[in-house]
Amino acid sequence: MTRAAFAAADWGTTRLRVWLIDDTGAPVAERRSDEGLLSVGGAGFEAVFERILGELGAPTDLPAIVCGMAGSRQGWLEVPYVDVPAKLEDVLSRAVRVPSVRRQVMILPGAALRQQGRPDVMRGEETQLAGVAALLGEGNRLACMPGTHSKWVELRDGTLTDFTTWMTGELYSVLAGHSILAHSLGKAPGAVDPETPAFGAWLGKGLANPQDVTAKLFKIRAGGLLFGLQPDDAAAALSGLLIGVEIASARRTHGGGEVVLVVSGALGALYQMALTLAGYRVRTVDADETVRLGLTAAASRLLDAGGSR
Amino acid sequence: MTRAAFAAADWGTTRLRVWLIDDTGAPVAERRSDEGLLSVGGAGFEAVFERILGELGAPTDLPAIVCGMAGSRQGWLEVPYVDVPAKLEDVLSRAVRVPSVRRQVMILPGAALRQQGRPDVMRGEETQLAGVAALLGEGNRLACMPGTHSKWVELRDGTLTDFTTWMTGELYSVLAGHSILAHSLGKAPGAVDPETPAFGAWLGKGLANPQDVTAKLFKIRAGGLLFGLQPDDAAAALSGLLIGVEIASARRTHGGGEVVLVVSGALGALYQMALTLAGYRVRTVDADETVRLGLTAAASRLLDAGGSR
Repeated sequence: MTRAAFAAADWGTTRLRVWLIDDTGAPVAERRSDEGLLSVGGAGFEAVFERILGELGAPTDLPAIVCGMAGSRQGWLEVPYVDVPAKLEDVLSRAVRVPSVRRQVMILPGAALRQQGRPDVMRGEETQLAGVAALLGEGNRLACMPGTHSKWVELRDGTLTDFTTWMTGELYSVLAGHSILAHSLGKAPGAVDPETPAFGAWLGKGLANPQDVTAKLFKIRAGGLLFGLQPDDAAAALSGLLIGVEIASARRTHGGGEVVLVVSGALGALYQMALTLAGYRVRTVDADETVRLGLTAAASRLLDAGGSR
Repeated sequence: MTRAAFAAADWGTTRLRVWLIDDTGAPVAERRSDEGLLSVGGAGFEAVFERILGELGAPTDLPAIVCGMAGSRQGWLEVPYVDVPAKLEDVLSRAVRVPSVRRQVMILPGAALRQQGRPDVMRGEETQLAGVAALLGEGNRLACMPGTHSKWVELRDGTLTDFTTWMTGELYSVLAGHSILAHSLGKAPGAVDPETPAFGAWLGKGLANPQDVTAKLFKIRAGGLLFGLQPDDAAAALSGLLIGVEIASARRTHGGGEVVLVVSGALGALYQMALTLAGYRVRTVDADETVRLGLTAAASRLLDAGGSR
């Protein structure tokens, strides 16, 4: 394989992705792991990271750049947030080197909106957004970044100006796993099919009446008891309702028009359909690719030249 | 003590309350237990009920009347819902006797709203509402019944005409226990103090912008990270937000004006303040008293005369 110039990692709450990247910016090796923040904890970050780099055949002096929850208080090293509004390139250059570690490991900061009344935080998405700018060019953009904590972000000529988080993915998980809705969803598969009619129907309810969401949730249970709503349909209903509420609220907060959908995996088709139904013009980019591009942009600013070359 | 004329029980999802009641309708003995539906399960209902009645000194031939989740599919005996609109006295007379049990045990039905698009169900509240009518007289009323699954109910001259459930209490529990907000709430006490400024502030947010609730939830977390929001305040914020969203949505669905607040315990002060702030004229009645009155009204219609006399 081509020789790696640096290692790049997106270390989130539940997942860790590591790439070796050559000096043209192309990935030459990749590893995905469930060893996210929650399963590592304590002082195990270096051990996990070195084991995976070893498995990928990375030299011990290969420098590394890391984004995501590894930079949080419960992570490897707390890296202070950069305050919004913030130029994306400034965010990338504020990384902090992990001390007492032989390898050069730089962890990127997150971004914070310190507004009384509407505080918000992100860790990892700022790096994806640098990748979006690298991929599509700068300009004025609205980005929708679905996930456990969905972010909607406004970019103005390379500056992150405003953003909001919706707890859509986490609400789906805790309600499906720990509430009375668990009875209705039963053993429904994890991935919802956007073609399921219940998805579109409940998406419509969420878009039309987001203020009623905490009542509509119970109607999924009542629909099972009174009208025999099946587990697959109940799961699609819950997903559609929560995504619809997110989009209705986001449209009011951040406006309509064109949106860049930054997504990977099964959520892509659901949000593509939902955003289109809500009247957005949607441009989809791959979340894995954008985070790698963002990490690469950071590496070109930050890492020692010739680390492994 | 005065001789008991019958036993009455409110058997819910997490709690069981049993009274012995004399022929004037006065309670002569009472037992509260955590042996709700979830902890009994299987075929243990008769054993639990007979043990408690024995501890209270009830004769083995004392008839009993039961309301609540004991009549659900996962309960002691499934008793079909009565469809809304329904006269409260009709609901009380549709009880079903538990078969193969020596004692006469009558379980009351729940009520169902079989509307496509807005199905809803209740079990137990219909009996409380019969108690409200016994206490305040019939008439046109709007009742707010806070809890795990808060109900708002419209009554027209003794007929239950419409109702809606909000998952307020259960959302509080699952988010406090199983979501990222658990980090923010920490070891906050179970009971929120309505005098906590954060309760009023977040109640206001919920009332003003209920459509943004799934974003506001994350702002409780961000407020902890950026502005040092303390656990007690985070718990008050979560409670205030969810109650505010419920009331804003309920006002739109069921109207404003006067509301009968049917409540016991710590939720009473929170809803009293919240409803008043939202512009309701509030009349509060005790939920324990109303369910006992409703069970007594049912007993006078249903039970064998002279069971223990």
